[in-house]
Amino acid sequence: MAPSQSGNNQEAAVPTPPLLDLTIDNITQNVVRINSQSSDARLNYLMERLVTHVHDFARETRLSTHEWMAAIQFLTQTGQICSDVRQEFILLSDVLGLSMLVDSIDHPKPPNCTEGSVLGPFHTHDAPHLPIGSSMSSDAAGEPMLALCTVRDSSNRPIEGVKVDIWETDSSGHYDVQYSTREAPSERCIMTSDVDGSFWFKAIRPVSYPIPDDGPVGKLLGRLKRHPWRPAHMHFMFEKPGLDHLITTLFIRGDKYETSDVVFGVKKSLVVDLDKVDKETAIRYGVPEGAWLLRHNFVLASTRETEHLRDKNAMEAMERLGLKSKLIDHLPVPDLD
Amino acid sequence: MAPSQSGNNQEAAVPTPPLLDLTIDNITQNVVRINSQSSDARLNYLMERLVTHVHDFARETRLSTHEWMAAIQFLTQTGQICSDVRQEFILLSDVLGLSMLVDSIDHPKPPNCTEGSVLGPFHTHDAPHLPIGSSMSSDAAGEPMLALCTVRDSSNRPIEGVKVDIWETDSSGHYDVQYSTREAPSERCIMTSDVDGSFWFKAIRPVSYPIPDDGPVGKLLGRLKRHPWRPAHMHFMFEKPGLDHLITTLFIRGDKYETSDVVFGVKKSLVVDLDKVDKETAIRYGVPEGAWLLRHNFVLASTRETEHLRDKNAMEAMERLGLKSKLIDHLPVPDLD
Repeated sequence: MAPSQSGNNQEAAVPTPPLLDLTIDNITQNVVRINSQSSDARLNYLMERLVTHVHDFARETRLSTHEWMAAIQFLTQTGQICSDVRQEFILLSDVLGLSMLVDSIDHPKPPNCTEGSVLGPFHTHDAPHLPIGSSMSSDAAGEPMLALCTVRDSSNRPIEGVKVDIWETDSSGHYDVQYSTREAPSERCIMTSDVDGSFWFKAIRPVSYPIPDDGPVGKLLGRLKRHPWRPAHMHFMFEKPGLDHLITTLFIRGDKYETSDVVFGVKKSLVVDLDKVDKETAIRYGVPEGAWLLRHNFVLASTRETEHLRDKNAMEAMERLGLKSKLIDHLPVPDLD
Repeated sequence: MAPSQSGNNQEAAVPTPPLLDLTIDNITQNVVRINSQSSDARLNYLMERLVTHVHDFARETRLSTHEWMAAIQFLTQTGQICSDVRQEFILLSDVLGLSMLVDSIDHPKPPNCTEGSVLGPFHTHDAPHLPIGSSMSSDAAGEPMLALCTVRDSSNRPIEGVKVDIWETDSSGHYDVQYSTREAPSERCIMTSDVDGSFWFKAIRPVSYPIPDDGPVGKLLGRLKRHPWRPAHMHFMFEKPGLDHLITTLFIRGDKYETSDVVFGVKKSLVVDLDKVDKETAIRYGVPEGAWLLRHNFVLASTRETEHLRDKNAMEAMERLGLKSKLIDHLPVPDLD
């Protein structure tokens, strides 16, 4: 009868001072100290900040054992509802505004570059690579939409060979992964930008939809009296070596939830107007005349531009916070020198 | 083809101000505002503190998208390894010192009352009720130990009818639930204190053991260069209406890990000396002469004593933190009057 959970970590030297009789007032410094033995300065710093904030949260709320257990159960349920096609912890991060905050910190945009938005929990890794001009939706109930897009750099030069990941819901406001009967990806694709930086595809007009409310995060929103809706939008993700990874979203102007997105993802620069396809365009692209037309030029920062801006912002922010820091791999750690 | 995750939350009124173009500097106040619509003042306060600390953590570390995704995956794995007999989130709370902190806050002890310690992840709800004098271990390889205990109140009066939950590992340092072949509980039981406040049982001498290191929490300890060991101990939990719920642990003096418990649970008052069973005791209790003998008197606070102390501590702590608060159901919320 072998134990299924064994303990084989190497023993470390017993640290000083003794971890004994810890109190509300001294436990934090002791936990931080024993978490500072790694040679990874960034890990030590992340743990120091994490433990300090978690403990301060408990002290400032006088957190009860009952509330603590409710939190343990909430986190457990959030993990257990996750699957290959559902990511409830990302959803939690989204509705707490953390996802937008982290994107703003890690992917600052030089002037004129396309702003970022949330990845959300519905991106998958199985979207088909489709040739330019393909249809990425098979939903006949949706309103047809033609999307004519380009990718350019901050000097307005077209960028060829950018991998563009695109995903949206069907006309009922559900992603393919929300159907238990899903057999293959739909309403999602990957395209590669052409020599002139262009890519175009046939899709359906996005609709607003509520995020899933049958899990722990949806139930939390209910308790907080928050609505679960996102305004109509389409997700885009851009990747090419040398370019800063761009995760963004285009929102269709005039949506009821434009100013109350449950995941805080809307930026004015990402709200777009739709046109109608005229006769000439209809013939040229093989879509019905009168279909919706989305035109958009995405402007991507280079890795170097973003890194420069991120480093500058980080050092300025740390100084404003009164934290003496240096950057290692473009991320701050305490400067103890 | 019905969607497996639908959104049916009631729509709330669209809040003001518009949630649009949120930045690193203003996202927190906006998320807090939209999380403040519930009539539950405590929930609103918990969310306000949670969002503030989570956002401050991201700002103070300039958290990267890569690190954020590592955290999402860590939390997901932590949830997914949980089962009916394994609670990895409690283990995480334990190794971060949060469990001890919350117990200290929520179950303050009047002078002379037995101090608390961590519940840990190995308590189960299927322990058998055994009559006083039973053996709660069937491990023949363990060193036999007789435990003679009493439960008293803070005025030294014996308390009858207290439900006492007791659990320990086997002689190899594993709880029953760590065996995949587990069919029934072992090394755990529930007893009820006698008219004179006494309860006694046969067990084995506790041994030190490492917490499970095959899951996310064990791997985290490894990265932090922390050892995973707990000093030899036995868990006790006491329940009776009118008494403050006591979760505690007795530690055997002289253990190598006495001052470096991985979950910070050791208090000097909970470290006990073992004796040896003499001839007379051996005959009286039906155990071998020379077996280990644990004698301990547990002193339990009343619900009223604990509540009084908790309320007093809370108001003093909030004042020291500069937070103007009032208590609702013995828990602080902002006092806005």
